Amino acid sequence: MQDLLKRIDDRVDECIEQLAQFVRIPSVSAGADGDSAPAIQQAADFLVEHFARMHFTAQKVQVSADTNPLVLARSPGFSNDRPTVMVYGHYDVQGVDNPRSAWDVDPFAAEQRDGYLIARGASDNKGPTFAHIKAAETMLQADETLPVDLLFVIEGEEECGSRALGTFIESGGLDEYAPFLCTVISDTSMYGPDRPSLTLGLRGISYFEMSVHGPKQDVHSGLFGGIVHNPNAVLVQALAGLYDAGGNIDVPGFYEGIEPLSNREKQLYDALDAREEDYVRELGVSALRSEEGYSLLEQRWTRPTLEINHLSGGSPRTVIPAVARAALSARLVPGQDPAQIEALLQARIRERIPQGARVEFAHPHSSPAYYLDIDHPLVAPTLSAIRQGFDCDALITREGGSIPIVVDIAAKTEAPVLLVGLGQITDNWHGPNERFCLRDFHRGMRTSAALLHELGRLS
Amino acid sequence: MQDLLKRIDDRVDECIEQLAQFVRIPSVSAGADGDSAPAIQQAADFLVEHFARMHFTAQKVQVSADTNPLVLARSPGFSNDRPTVMVYGHYDVQGVDNPRSAWDVDPFAAEQRDGYLIARGASDNKGPTFAHIKAAETMLQADETLPVDLLFVIEGEEECGSRALGTFIESGGLDEYAPFLCTVISDTSMYGPDRPSLTLGLRGISYFEMSVHGPKQDVHSGLFGGIVHNPNAVLVQALAGLYDAGGNIDVPGFYEGIEPLSNREKQLYDALDAREEDYVRELGVSALRSEEGYSLLEQRWTRPTLEINHLSGGSPRTVIPAVARAALSARLVPGQDPAQIEALLQARIRERIPQGARVEFAHPHSSPAYYLDIDHPLVAPTLSAIRQGFDCDALITREGGSIPIVVDIAAKTEAPVLLVGLGQITDNWHGPNERFCLRDFHRGMRTSAALLHELGRLS
Repeated sequence: MQDLLKRIDDRVDECIEQLAQFVRIPSVSAGADGDSAPAIQQAADFLVEHFARMHFTAQKVQVSADTNPLVLARSPGFSNDRPTVMVYGHYDVQGVDNPRSAWDVDPFAAEQRDGYLIARGASDNKGPTFAHIKAAETMLQADETLPVDLLFVIEGEEECGSRALGTFIESGGLDEYAPFLCTVISDTSMYGPDRPSLTLGLRGISYFEMSVHGPKQDVHSGLFGGIVHNPNAVLVQALAGLYDAGGNIDVPGFYEGIEPLSNREKQLYDALDAREEDYVRELGVSALRSEEGYSLLEQRWTRPTLEINHLSGGSPRTVIPAVARAALSARLVPGQDPAQIEALLQARIRERIPQGARVEFAHPHSSPAYYLDIDHPLVAPTLSAIRQGFDCDALITREGGSIPIVVDIAAKTEAPVLLVGLGQITDNWHGPNERFCLRDFHRGMRTSAALLHELGRLS
Repeated sequence: MQDLLKRIDDRVDECIEQLAQFVRIPSVSAGADGDSAPAIQQAADFLVEHFARMHFTAQKVQVSADTNPLVLARSPGFSNDRPTVMVYGHYDVQGVDNPRSAWDVDPFAAEQRDGYLIARGASDNKGPTFAHIKAAETMLQADETLPVDLLFVIEGEEECGSRALGTFIESGGLDEYAPFLCTVISDTSMYGPDRPSLTLGLRGISYFEMSVHGPKQDVHSGLFGGIVHNPNAVLVQALAGLYDAGGNIDVPGFYEGIEPLSNREKQLYDALDAREEDYVRELGVSALRSEEGYSLLEQRWTRPTLEINHLSGGSPRTVIPAVARAALSARLVPGQDPAQIEALLQARIRERIPQGARVEFAHPHSSPAYYLDIDHPLVAPTLSAIRQGFDCDALITREGGSIPIVVDIAAKTEAPVLLVGLGQITDNWHGPNERFCLRDFHRGMRTSAALLHELGRLS
């Protein structure tokens, strides 16, 4: 193993150069950057060719005419005799128009500064995915074989809904690679610089939009004020009914069935010593919101939320609007069923719509929370691999965000997903000047090699 | 008097032709129609020349360099020996871009169809104002003198805030014409077709905008959801606190001091027999909002309201916004002090802003309600004039809207304002295809002549 890690250390510069080529392809799938279809194909081709040079069996899979191709690649000598280790990543990137002028460099020039590669997609998710590819390549160069049967699934629509991959998984596209030992995904973040982590859980989500309808067109508040329900006021009163006087969620059944946090996890998160003053400074607020009885990290990672993401209605004139709109989302935790939460919220809202107004719900999407039991047998080997790769302690964390495809993959492969983030929260995903720490790229390759090695002992 | 009315009847067509010339001047003061400064001057000049031909002493008054001129005109033989009758109107009009494509005709071509003059400004307010001018002219042609000392004050900024007139009144510009018997204004609506009315009251207004501030920039609801106050949710909860569970205004002190409606007025409004089903149909709702103990017209005209005119915050994505905004306005009735109402509302909102969020208020404007006592000695002669002019019964009404300049004029002249609307609610003020019924123009001229005659007996 030390020999293998040494080989990786020796070829870091070469790998960085190839990663730079990868991020120079402007494979935008989300954003208003015009037609990026050729770049999408170019990025997929880049991967297929790269895998082919590694003697993987690689192909572009076009699931339907209007989706971006998946790249599937299985390792040389892949057999169905032992459980498959799948690595998931995505080659598509966010747009750069948010705004373009906020970028200090050309987002697709792959400039290096102070140990960072600055480019759209460097950290989300080309860099972390490429670390796994280069680790496998190095292992093959050393031994001509891999300790596991490895399947790469790299999609081109993560930033715009994972439609092709969702269809592919749903229709049994992964069946021929079963059984699975696990899936490795590096699309989360490390807890902090030099604080690599295995992310045990992600919150789920229940999102929907709503509109409250009143008069058939905007009307004058002098002419009709008093005799017609104002959709803005109805909306505000209906939404306020979701919270109690202290601002906590007040929807009967919302908290029912939530799996309590184990003492062991609670102690681990307490030990991370998250400081309220750091968050106060970063967020620019005078105080945080807090839920009694839960620490800061418990609230961020293990407690459900209910956010009003969007409000709109009327205009700053003396008008009663015809319609008021809102978008709501609840972050969910293990034990909460997204469909049931959606039903509870919408029922609670409907209760408060008076006769003479009307509510409609639209664009729901949801996904349950993902959770890997801290006592699962793959947890210890993963932590060990991170320690070897990073040469430092490996933490256990969760994240507050939601990655619906993780839940789908875990369900369909009937195997755990190991979330080993290689990026930092400060890498500016989706924002200007996205960056990826090249030292983390290096240590990510080492971690990947060590993990394949560990998993080989189990498969 | 019959002779005078006959004279008016005989020259209606000539007056309509001159009104058409007036409305062909696109004197837009509000809207996005580009530079209309030349048309503003042209409309003011049109009036000054018209008054000069009537032997009035007329002038354009330029209150400041960046405002539109007032037109002031006093009748021949104007003395300070008897109380002045003032007629107020405005020559400026709304824009036509709301949207322009919704107009069936050129908004400034002054087309006539089915007895209506279709043009921007025809009903709001050139037609009604011109009716008074032509009535005075006809009286002078008949008798070479007027029964009252008459002062026309016609402004060019009614649609954009009456800044010049406000300054002019405030700085004592009307003092040289004192004392005043009354001001006549035809900038309200009749109760309905063939149902002319004297409008005794207008509601006042207290308007302000507010913003709730949270994190210094929009943040990801997965990363920070649960530990930071969401400005949308804080806004919603603060605004909902202004209403009780039934949707009625729940702000201590809000209803204090309201002058009760007299039985006489109540009976008059009940007799108007406003039908809920007509409003339901017009508004396109399944039911009206209602306040227990008050009839439909009482609610529209004599009860205060609290409307949320505008809501905005965030976007339909999983974001916690940095800021959420709202605009609120209360319609006020006699006995309510706008400054106190504003203070009560803002205090109630502040109570509900938790630590970690921040509220700011902006753009307040307000005006108290206007009310003319039903027993005032000018009420009977005004009703009599309307009856003579329209040859039908004259109603007493109020209106739910607010015209701040009416309150200013009444206060500064220390005399009542007689609101004698000549337009219809269905004339589409501010909307496309604005129109003015030429029969109402004719009957308006008759009413004006009869009113000057009645007032002459009192002055």
